Amino acid sequence: MQAPDKVGRAKILGVHSRSVPLDPEVDLEALASATPGMVGADLANVVNEAALIAARREHSAVRQGDLTDALEKIVLGTERSVVQSESDRRRIAYHEGGHAIVGMLTPGADPVRKVSIIPRGQALGVTMSAPDADVFNYEESYLRGKIKVALGGRVAEELTFGTITTGAESDIQQATQLARGMVGRWGMSEEIGFVAVESQNGNGPLLPGVSDTSEATQRMVDAEVRRIIEEAHEDVRNLLERERERLDSLAESLLRDETLDESDAYRAAGIDRVAAPA
Amino acid sequence: MQAPDKVGRAKILGVHSRSVPLDPEVDLEALASATPGMVGADLANVVNEAALIAARREHSAVRQGDLTDALEKIVLGTERSVVQSESDRRRIAYHEGGHAIVGMLTPGADPVRKVSIIPRGQALGVTMSAPDADVFNYEESYLRGKIKVALGGRVAEELTFGTITTGAESDIQQATQLARGMVGRWGMSEEIGFVAVESQNGNGPLLPGVSDTSEATQRMVDAEVRRIIEEAHEDVRNLLERERERLDSLAESLLRDETLDESDAYRAAGIDRVAAPA
Amino acid sequence: MQAPDKVGRAKILGVHSRSVPLDPEVDLEALASATPGMVGADLANVVNEAALIAARREHSAVRQGDLTDALEKIVLGTERSVVQSESDRRRIAYHEGGHAIVGMLTPGADPVRKVSIIPRGQALGVTMSAPDADVFNYEESYLRGKIKVALGGRVAEELTFGTITTGAESDIQQATQLARGMVGRWGMSEEIGFVAVESQNGNGPLLPGVSDTSEATQRMVDAEVRRIIEEAHEDVRNLLERERERLDSLAESLLRDETLDESDAYRAAGIDRVAAPA
Amino acid sequence: MQAPDKVGRAKILGVHSRSVPLDPEVDLEALASATPGMVGADLANVVNEAALIAARREHSAVRQGDLTDALEKIVLGTERSVVQSESDRRRIAYHEGGHAIVGMLTPGADPVRKVSIIPRGQALGVTMSAPDADVFNYEESYLRGKIKVALGGRVAEELTFGTITTGAESDIQQATQLARGMVGRWGMSEEIGFVAVESQNGNGPLLPGVSDTSEATQRMVDAEVRRIIEEAHEDVRNLLERERERLDSLAESLLRDETLDESDAYRAAGIDRVAAPA
Amino acid sequence: MQAPDKVGRAKILGVHSRSVPLDPEVDLEALASATPGMVGADLANVVNEAALIAARREHSAVRQGDLTDALEKIVLGTERSVVQSESDRRRIAYHEGGHAIVGMLTPGADPVRKVSIIPRGQALGVTMSAPDADVFNYEESYLRGKIKVALGGRVAEELTFGTITTGAESDIQQATQLARGMVGRWGMSEEIGFVAVESQNGNGPLLPGVSDTSEATQRMVDAEVRRIIEEAHEDVRNLLERERERLDSLAESLLRDETLDESDAYRAAGIDRVAAPA
Amino acid sequence: MQAPDKVGRAKILGVHSRSVPLDPEVDLEALASATPGMVGADLANVVNEAALIAARREHSAVRQGDLTDALEKIVLGTERSVVQSESDRRRIAYHEGGHAIVGMLTPGADPVRKVSIIPRGQALGVTMSAPDADVFNYEESYLRGKIKVALGGRVAEELTFGTITTGAESDIQQATQLARGMVGRWGMSEEIGFVAVESQNGNGPLLPGVSDTSEATQRMVDAEVRRIIEEAHEDVRNLLERERERLDSLAESLLRDETLDESDAYRAAGIDRVAAPA
Repeated sequence: MQAPDKVGRAKILGVHSRSVPLDPEVDLEALASATPGMVGADLANVVNEAALIAARREHSAVRQGDLTDALEKIVLGTERSVVQSESDRRRIAYHEGGHAIVGMLTPGADPVRKVSIIPRGQALGVTMSAPDADVFNYEESYLRGKIKVALGGRVAEELTFGTITTGAESDIQQATQLARGMVGRWGMSEEIGFVAVESQNGNGPLLPGVSDTSEATQRMVDAEVRRIIEEAHEDVRNLLERERERLDSLAESLLRDETLDESDAYRAAGIDRVAAPA
Repeated sequence: MQAPDKVGRAKILGVHSRSVPLDPEVDLEALASATPGMVGADLANVVNEAALIAARREHSAVRQGDLTDALEKIVLGTERSVVQSESDRRRIAYHEGGHAIVGMLTPGADPVRKVSIIPRGQALGVTMSAPDADVFNYEESYLRGKIKVALGGRVAEELTFGTITTGAESDIQQATQLARGMVGRWGMSEEIGFVAVESQNGNGPLLPGVSDTSEATQRMVDAEVRRIIEEAHEDVRNLLERERERLDSLAESLLRDETLDESDAYRAAGIDRVAAPA
Repeated sequence: MQAPDKVGRAKILGVHSRSVPLDPEVDLEALASATPGMVGADLANVVNEAALIAARREHSAVRQGDLTDALEKIVLGTERSVVQSESDRRRIAYHEGGHAIVGMLTPGADPVRKVSIIPRGQALGVTMSAPDADVFNYEESYLRGKIKVALGGRVAEELTFGTITTGAESDIQQATQLARGMVGRWGMSEEIGFVAVESQNGNGPLLPGVSDTSEATQRMVDAEVRRIIEEAHEDVRNLLERERERLDSLAESLLRDETLDESDAYRAAGIDRVAAPA
Repeated sequence: MQAPDKVGRAKILGVHSRSVPLDPEVDLEALASATPGMVGADLANVVNEAALIAARREHSAVRQGDLTDALEKIVLGTERSVVQSESDRRRIAYHEGGHAIVGMLTPGADPVRKVSIIPRGQALGVTMSAPDADVFNYEESYLRGKIKVALGGRVAEELTFGTITTGAESDIQQATQLARGMVGRWGMSEEIGFVAVESQNGNGPLLPGVSDTSEATQRMVDAEVRRIIEEAHEDVRNLLERERERLDSLAESLLRDETLDESDAYRAAGIDRVAAPA
Repeated sequence: MQAPDKVGRAKILGVHSRSVPLDPEVDLEALASATPGMVGADLANVVNEAALIAARREHSAVRQGDLTDALEKIVLGTERSVVQSESDRRRIAYHEGGHAIVGMLTPGADPVRKVSIIPRGQALGVTMSAPDADVFNYEESYLRGKIKVALGGRVAEELTFGTITTGAESDIQQATQLARGMVGRWGMSEEIGFVAVESQNGNGPLLPGVSDTSEATQRMVDAEVRRIIEEAHEDVRNLLERERERLDSLAESLLRDETLDESDAYRAAGIDRVAAPA
Repeated sequence: MQAPDKVGRAKILGVHSRSVPLDPEVDLEALASATPGMVGADLANVVNEAALIAARREHSAVRQGDLTDALEKIVLGTERSVVQSESDRRRIAYHEGGHAIVGMLTPGADPVRKVSIIPRGQALGVTMSAPDADVFNYEESYLRGKIKVALGGRVAEELTFGTITTGAESDIQQATQLARGMVGRWGMSEEIGFVAVESQNGNGPLLPGVSDTSEATQRMVDAEVRRIIEEAHEDVRNLLERERERLDSLAESLLRDETLDESDAYRAAGIDRVAAPA
């Protein structure tokens, strides 16, 4: 099924909120902007959850804040209270701060929508980014930016504490997956060229009747993936060393406020959010 | 089941349209030309869809335009409206324009039937090509031409915007599949020679009782695939640099008109469609 | 089940044709010669099909021609009418002519029984060869001859048109399969020696309890297969260059008559069919 | 399901012990500290087992000791009496002593909670370590520490008896698993970098559509794993040679008392347990 | 189930022939010698088949010849009449003669019991060998002898006709299987040593928990297998060149008599069958 | 399920023999010593079988000899009478003698409990060894000793007869399995170090999420396995050359008496069984 685009999502939200009292200031288009990839059932879910939250908060009508909190709860999971040492909190604040600073300062990267060090679901913290409009094609620079954002957490930890942890596992998977896609699916490595590299698992009908990819090609893929990530790593290290003060400032704000929305996060980092609001 | 040839398809269309009022100018042979590979059920489907379209348009009889629109809807999916930035539209116009210009200027390539930047199904744009007559054997130059057409989209983006995107993924798969077939199935690589390269998946009974293909041969296959695609890439780059004006002109027409049929597309590109009409 | 030999097939044909009126000139032994590998059910099928054909042709008794047409229909599929360009017909005529000339001039190769450019089933043309008597063992030279016949189609196209097509795919598979068998199963490569090369698929119990074939051996197998096919290719190129006139003459006859039986084909090629009739 | 944190576990223990007479000195928070990773059903199990033990011991209320014995029985299995030679007992005492001394003297390693040479379940002895608080991220130094603790048993045997046994099999597996995770999942090898190394088994969707990891990368992973373990091995050898007297003293205490709890173990080794009590 | 030994087989034959009239000269012990590996059901089968043959031949009692013919029919399949050219018969006579001469002249090889060029089942000819007594262990020289016998057929063809055929396929498989067993299972290669080489198929539990055999070892296995077969090949070539007259004489006898039993075969070859009769 | 230790087995034997009249001299503890690894059902089986044997022998009570014969029958299978040549018997006597002499003279190896050349089940002879007490950990020297004992049979054959046979197949498997375990599971190879080498079959969860073992490591494993076995082979060859007289003497006793129990075997070899009786 084709996911609806922003216009479609706004219409669907309109339908689902008919039977719910909406505060006049609610802006369903803004909510539509924030829900790329969602289909009808997801959007209905957001509206229902917002109604429950509003009831619990004894609002006479569903407010914008109820809707965004409902969206967060659905996307990120419920907040959990966890007993953490102060040093664990600092590490997470710098990790998320690293993702966020890199996201804010990498040209073309998705704007940072929220940064939080409150544990939710499996995650100990979260940095949420989203484009201002639906995106259908990704430019190479955008992918490199996403890899950099993924690396930002680990690099910030390294610069600040001089040590690294297992906490970057999913960042590493994401960066690797993007880099392998660039090399093996999207023709973004000169070494491999405009060639799709066949998968041995599952992707059987891609290239029927011919041999598997050679070890020589696999080695080249690995080397290119490594190169792409290394280059991103170097850029991120330089960026965060240069912007150390912004990182400190953002991390301090996180330690104090735990969750920062888009404008607070950019303000804490001392960065102008220049893109037009969604 | 054997798909019918053009003569057969024309007969089948005749049978299925007996119960439908046809405009006297309808040319079922032209429709038969445009439906290679379709079997009886597909053709019946086209006629039925055309009847529905004609009814919606309040035509008293099914016209040729109703039939071709029905065919398009079935082959390409329904048009979708998507909110796109102007820069996204420009990129798609140049991408499809690149496919089309290469298709128009590569000797022996299938004529371009339609170019469009209206999103349909999963695709953001489409360049449709089809031969004037059923083809049963493919010449090596024809396959190289098809690879070039596949590369045309990415190269046009690169020349115009200096950047590349993930949008070429299926083009890369198609080019790779053709090149691997040339090397491993059709004996078109001197390095591999007149030898079939055994598949490890599924194709078990091809060469029973003997060992798998060696890594050395797989490496050679990979290198040949790479070479074929590189050569095509270079040709396409030279062609589109040389024909930059035609590309600009076609892209501009696409941005203005969104969809160009065969004659409009050739006219917009300033290219004579010399082949005899189907 | 053991397939019957020629004597057995003649007896089986006798049994199945008891209830069918046979023209006195029918020669069941000749038919038996032409059906190696067939079992009782296949032969019954031929007789039944011949009875249908005879009925359709309003013959009062089944004639030899009805039987051979029935055999052809069963072995090769029904003739199809396809709209082909003249250039496609020429290409096919030279392709089949190439198979046939190589078959006629390679000492020890099976005599050519029929050449046709009428599409049947999936094939666009056919060159049928069969030995004069049942064969149980194949000499190395016979296998090399079969590889040459397989290559004859592509080489004839190349010499005549200077271009190659995808039409040789099944020829390539056959040549590769024969060459791999020579190397890996029949001890006909000095490099590999009198050693069976284990299959990784299916052939598990062949050599239980020991390791798989090494990459080094697989590389040697690939190289030997390549060498055998290269040598055959060179011989075929020399042969067809030398016998170009015969090829032209046979191809012209095919373009005119579409199907040539054994004696017509040899006559068109200007070659004496010296072997004793079956 | 998300495992509860320490606060949550204390609450769950409170719920499950409502129907059980608890000695007033029972400290459920201490028990919660000792049960990281346990979920509701596990904690209920501990309370029930403690009630049975208390009944068997004719305690009028469940005491702290009943709870910790119940926990041990569930985590480690029931004690078994096995006829062992004195030399086997000595070897086990030094093996467990080695784990424990390394655990006590490696900065940042989890405190040693218990050491025992009484066979339980499949194990001939046990050294139990646990952090003072729930841990969510593991630092690289912590992982290296865990590898060292795993190696401590074998090294102690080697230093003391000059010989090695099969008894370190699960230690070897644990050390290898940690080192492979450091290299392939957590980006802790400079040679491999911030790259996830794809698994061939099961982990299919990690990197869909691209080739497998090359042999060259696998070789690098193996070498890095080897290096990490070698470095840990050298450190452990130096540590245990230097701290030989502590090892002897701890082993002697184990031979005499068979089981040592946290404070007895640290005292026997002559090491200050400086970390704050949980 | 354990197959009975010779003494056991004689007893079982006695039981099954109680209800059958036996000619007084029948020697059940001789039949027991000729049926190693057979179990009760097989032996009962032989007796029943012999009774049928005796009935067909109108013998008043089952004779020794009826029993051995019954055994042959069961072991080798029924004789088939096949129309063969004289040159095919000669080739088969030399092929079987080659097996037989090598078997007769290789010290320690099983005596040749019968040679025949009458097609049976799938085979065009047969050379049957069997030891004088049950064998439980095979000496290396015996295995090398068996490889030589397997090679004897192809070498005899090569020496006599200068050409080779596909007819040696099962000989090649047998020789390869024996040589791979010598190298990988029975410790008879100095290069591999007293090491079992693990199979990748099926033989999983042989060496659980450790890695697969390396390519380096597989290459060594392949090279050793090749060496063993090459050495045998050379010996066989020398032997058959030297004993060419015996081969000619045996082959001529086969062409004349089609089947030779043990004494006739040795006589035709001019070789003393020195071993004591079974 | 945990197998009981010696104390446990003695108790279980006591329970199962309650309903059986036991000779007062029966020593169930000695039987318990001889049944390591057996569980309740196995031990019950031994007692029942002993009762049957005692009944057949018309003993009024079950004697120790009935129990040990029952144990043997269950562990080794029933004795079979096989017609063997004298040379086969000599070979087996030297093969088993080789195992036994190496077992008797290798320090720390399990004492030899019985040597026999009477075929049982699939085996043509047997050398049974068992420790004096349950063992839980195996020292490296013990494993090397076991490899040597496995090699003893083949080496004795080689020294005595100058030839080798297929009879060592299971010895080769055992030696290989032990050596691979030493290298890949128990950290006993300096080349591989304290690293577990991952299996490709079945052992999936050992090291999840990381790549397979590299060919380079597999090659190292193979080389280490080879080295360990070679060293053992050399030691065994030296030992048996030096102790040739003991080997001859033991083999002669075996040929005369067919089965030797522990004390007879040591006496025949002229070796003091110094270890304390079980």
